[in-house]
Amino acid sequence: MKHLLLIGIGPGNPRQITLEAIDALNRAEVFFVLDKGAAKDDMLRLRKELLERHVNRPYRLVQVEDPLRDGEASDYVGAVQDWHRQRAALYGRLIDSELADGQSGAFLLWGEPGLYDSTLRILELVEHQHFSLEVIPGISSVQALAARHRIPLNRIGEPLTVLPGRRLAEQAQIDNLVVMLDGHCAFAQLEDPDLHIYWGAYLGTPDELLIEGPLLAVKAQILAQREQARARKGWIMDTYLLRRR
Amino acid sequence: MKHLLLIGIGPGNPRQITLEAIDALNRAEVFFVLDKGAAKDDMLRLRKELLERHVNRPYRLVQVEDPLRDGEASDYVGAVQDWHRQRAALYGRLIDSELADGQSGAFLLWGEPGLYDSTLRILELVEHQHFSLEVIPGISSVQALAARHRIPLNRIGEPLTVLPGRRLAEQAQIDNLVVMLDGHCAFAQLEDPDLHIYWGAYLGTPDELLIEGPLLAVKAQILAQREQARARKGWIMDTYLLRRR
Repeated sequence: MKHLLLIGIGPGNPRQITLEAIDALNRAEVFFVLDKGAAKDDMLRLRKELLERHVNRPYRLVQVEDPLRDGEASDYVGAVQDWHRQRAALYGRLIDSELADGQSGAFLLWGEPGLYDSTLRILELVEHQHFSLEVIPGISSVQALAARHRIPLNRIGEPLTVLPGRRLAEQAQIDNLVVMLDGHCAFAQLEDPDLHIYWGAYLGTPDELLIEGPLLAVKAQILAQREQARARKGWIMDTYLLRRR
Repeated sequence: MKHLLLIGIGPGNPRQITLEAIDALNRAEVFFVLDKGAAKDDMLRLRKELLERHVNRPYRLVQVEDPLRDGEASDYVGAVQDWHRQRAALYGRLIDSELADGQSGAFLLWGEPGLYDSTLRILELVEHQHFSLEVIPGISSVQALAARHRIPLNRIGEPLTVLPGRRLAEQAQIDNLVVMLDGHCAFAQLEDPDLHIYWGAYLGTPDELLIEGPLLAVKAQILAQREQARARKGWIMDTYLLRRR
């Protein structure tokens, strides 16, 4: 039997990792690193630093270049599912060739493995491989955002909704809404004067950016800072909370 | 100036604390412990163990008996706001009398300080005290639930909603819904045959209970186990995810 560990390592601050995650790092013989896009080098460096600091036993790092998904496909769910199947075939080959029976392999996942991360779903699609699976939760960027702005995510007795940017436009009513993965800045289309935004980028890292205020008043500032930062670093990871007054 | 640290210490597993939280524990001179109800003694013991294990400097523990809120009040938000004001007066007195200028006081909060925890909101209501505030995120029971069931919280591109039990009945459509604070077992009223439930109690502790299955098939089992466990321990903390097939 092979064992797979999906380890949440937090949003980017190397101190925002749990003791449970460090224990899990020290149970793996092999670490799989599948990065893509412009953030690849920075992400890889941060993970290597984490392993050097916390792992006290020999390990192997298996790096795989991951093809970019077609982000502009008209059938969004279909395109994601296709990409998941391709990735599942790749993961299956890795488990087969890189892990011996009785060995443990780990995926180091930014943020929280259960929140807008596809690794669990992809592993469900892997065929012809037998493995047991363990998930270690991690601090998500949503939590880092709330902590750095010193705000609760929800108000008294109210629901909290978390969604991807592409689903923002269809929300009839926004009370407490966290938006992730909004590469197209969907917030910029909202014109409701009662909305307040708490925005953050590169949360928990030395590049962290925080802006908050009435959405209509700070919208342009967020767009400008976001563009500047992205041009400088080559990539951006940001998230925000919208709240109705 | 006085400094307050709101430290998320995870859902109950002492390894589910971050290095950042441990750093913060070691910056506090005073720890405020305000527990209430039947879980009080167990909660206090777990916190004391955490401090003994991780804090390498002298500290004081200030325990305060916290009056129970009227959980059956007809004006829910009003009753909570009243209780918050009472608590704010109490916190104000504690900050005034227990912390000297330049000292740091910490609140050890179960789970995530930003998610259905009232401490931040109460501190906003404290009057006549000057303090700076820092929030340290923690693993929430929602994340522990997903990790232990090895499921993602959301499906591809879908929103995730988190809400308190008393708001469950009014949900028109349930896709991915996490329910917290459901002392009245609102899930037992749902009759939709397409719902699947992932339930967990005492997550991350030796008493952990996990049940999952079609809601209609496992509903009675959850109710029975929940009642048994509560009778045995004197209290229960549980949470669940509902998902439409």
